[in-house]
Amino acid sequence: MEAYFDNAATTRCSDGAKEVMMRVLSEDYGNPSSLHRKGMEGENYIREARKNISKTLKVNDAELIFTSGGTEANNLAIIGAALANRRQGMHLITTRIEHPAVAAPMRYLEEQGFSVTWLEVDSDGLISLEKLKDAVTKDTILVSIMYVNNEIGAVEPIEEAAKVIKEKNSGTLFHVDAIQAYGKYIIHPKKLGIDLMSVSGHKIHGPKGSGFLYVKEKTKLKPVIYGGGQQKGMRSGTENVPGIAGMGQAAKEAYEDFGRKQEHLYQLKNAFLFGLADVEWARINGKTGRDSAPHIISLSIEGLRSEVLLHALEDRQIYVSAGSACSSNKPAPSSTLKAVHVKKEALESTVRISFSPENTLEEVNYCLDALKELVPSLQKFTRR
Amino acid sequence: MEAYFDNAATTRCSDGAKEVMMRVLSEDYGNPSSLHRKGMEGENYIREARKNISKTLKVNDAELIFTSGGTEANNLAIIGAALANRRQGMHLITTRIEHPAVAAPMRYLEEQGFSVTWLEVDSDGLISLEKLKDAVTKDTILVSIMYVNNEIGAVEPIEEAAKVIKEKNSGTLFHVDAIQAYGKYIIHPKKLGIDLMSVSGHKIHGPKGSGFLYVKEKTKLKPVIYGGGQQKGMRSGTENVPGIAGMGQAAKEAYEDFGRKQEHLYQLKNAFLFGLADVEWARINGKTGRDSAPHIISLSIEGLRSEVLLHALEDRQIYVSAGSACSSNKPAPSSTLKAVHVKKEALESTVRISFSPENTLEEVNYCLDALKELVPSLQKFTRR
Repeated sequence: MEAYFDNAATTRCSDGAKEVMMRVLSEDYGNPSSLHRKGMEGENYIREARKNISKTLKVNDAELIFTSGGTEANNLAIIGAALANRRQGMHLITTRIEHPAVAAPMRYLEEQGFSVTWLEVDSDGLISLEKLKDAVTKDTILVSIMYVNNEIGAVEPIEEAAKVIKEKNSGTLFHVDAIQAYGKYIIHPKKLGIDLMSVSGHKIHGPKGSGFLYVKEKTKLKPVIYGGGQQKGMRSGTENVPGIAGMGQAAKEAYEDFGRKQEHLYQLKNAFLFGLADVEWARINGKTGRDSAPHIISLSIEGLRSEVLLHALEDRQIYVSAGSACSSNKPAPSSTLKAVHVKKEALESTVRISFSPENTLEEVNYCLDALKELVPSLQKFTRR
Repeated sequence: MEAYFDNAATTRCSDGAKEVMMRVLSEDYGNPSSLHRKGMEGENYIREARKNISKTLKVNDAELIFTSGGTEANNLAIIGAALANRRQGMHLITTRIEHPAVAAPMRYLEEQGFSVTWLEVDSDGLISLEKLKDAVTKDTILVSIMYVNNEIGAVEPIEEAAKVIKEKNSGTLFHVDAIQAYGKYIIHPKKLGIDLMSVSGHKIHGPKGSGFLYVKEKTKLKPVIYGGGQQKGMRSGTENVPGIAGMGQAAKEAYEDFGRKQEHLYQLKNAFLFGLADVEWARINGKTGRDSAPHIISLSIEGLRSEVLLHALEDRQIYVSAGSACSSNKPAPSSTLKAVHVKKEALESTVRISFSPENTLEEVNYCLDALKELVPSLQKFTRR
């Protein structure tokens, strides 16, 4: 049996998404900027994707900018909004547990003279609305808070945060990194008070290299990539038609039969947590109930380095992550785990299990059995 | 019969490229940053693409940065090099006939306080090496010259330009937009004296959404997208593994049996030019011999708007471009055609025919017949 439990890192492309991509690559391959029929065909795929996605968000088709992925969407939102609105102020707010795709653009802006307030979180990874309120000033042009944390599945109080921000400064823009939330929650940015929202295609069974930024109409933004003026000048470059079409299809699929899928994810998560409930070496980081993300579990294992466990599981075709896959290029203790006060010795003993609706209870049980067999013997080995 | 003659805008994805992409999307879908086997599999596709491409260029595998396309590669090269080297000087040089993906980043840098010299070209679209020499000063940190012009197929004297630049200022970086040249010429950047070179995947039968920048080792560059630190921090974001794998395969295929393919392109071009040689209403812009690109023809037709002709040809399943497809978002007279002194009335009467090795002589003849039949009657219609 194989159990791929690294879906927060990336997912398998759905058959539907793959199919439409194939059609685009080999038949309807025109450049959307071309004036002839083949160009129109390309443009139609983009229009269709736009429609499919905007329907899931209840936003206008024109409020989406397609990007090369979630990282670019975050960069465009943060750097683009900061540079476009710097005359209104030079102050930004974010949290200590953002993904590097948010934290790194923020640090870049600090170098450019912006000041950034980094909000602390509690041991469940949640921001304090009080502290947020205190942080917003008349100089605050942008607040960026993630919807679901990628490492421990904390779900931030987005709607409440939006209210707090706008009450304090109606001109402050609110960006939400929804890369781990889109497809797992029904998200209506306009209802929630979100101005900018980043999504990645490959986290929802779409292709890598695809993503989008929701930009509420009339929001001032500067591009980060300049050129031929595609997408109203906000993102130049020939559109990645196969990627956009694949993501559009995946988005549509993600919200089909949505309630059942979300419920299934919670069942997988609960089964996993239940299976480890009476196990002394296992500790779960963050919340575990319906107030946490349905697909992410952060598990610290006493006295066992995560990489050792990861490779032992891999031998049984069980795939989990050591921390956040996206930042494993630079092996450093996770800033999220540090921020939620995970003990020093547990920082390097934490794995992330992340589900997709394609996973099964059998796979969960298979993984639980493997853990219960492997961990005690690996611990012994490590202690020697 | 169908004749797709808009290959400078985009190409059909090759079967080989499509095949490897399918495999990545549905089977080997791991995130290259994941530490487990599925992550390694993803990483291996990137390594393979890197190897395939660097072999065609005779460069080191580590000297390639994968991007979301040619536009991003140009932005990274120009903005990245300018910002990383601004302490050495604030002067940049480029030409009047660059693609917007070069011209727009240059204009952005002008806003940031850099000064840009825009080199004029002669009526064949060629820069003057003398003028280039005069333009390079001790403050010049970057020169960007395209290899092949996308509208008229002019081939710039890249190797000579590199010599002129380096003799005048050995610290000046030389960037080449090779988006219309890679796959049509054998290009060895190190031999030519190129420091930075941009390539797009979808111009060589790879997928849209893929591209790369060659960066000579030790070249100082700042990223334009910040995040998880992928590709040594130079281009953060989960790698577009299917796109990269597809482009790697396409690059390999482009240089297989290369001499025959290039020869075939010149045959198509010559047949086309020969067929129009004795036709009074046709005027070819730029050079037409072996000193011009093998795949691009710029054709001005007296007294006939290019869009009228484009749509008439489209009815016969012949696809050509009005000007440059990539900039047709903003319908404005082409700056390249203006720069090569195409007459005012011809600016809006110019179509681009662009070939791929997949095109045939039959398709060329089919197009010639259609032109000879359509143009005189459309001209009459237009004159009324």
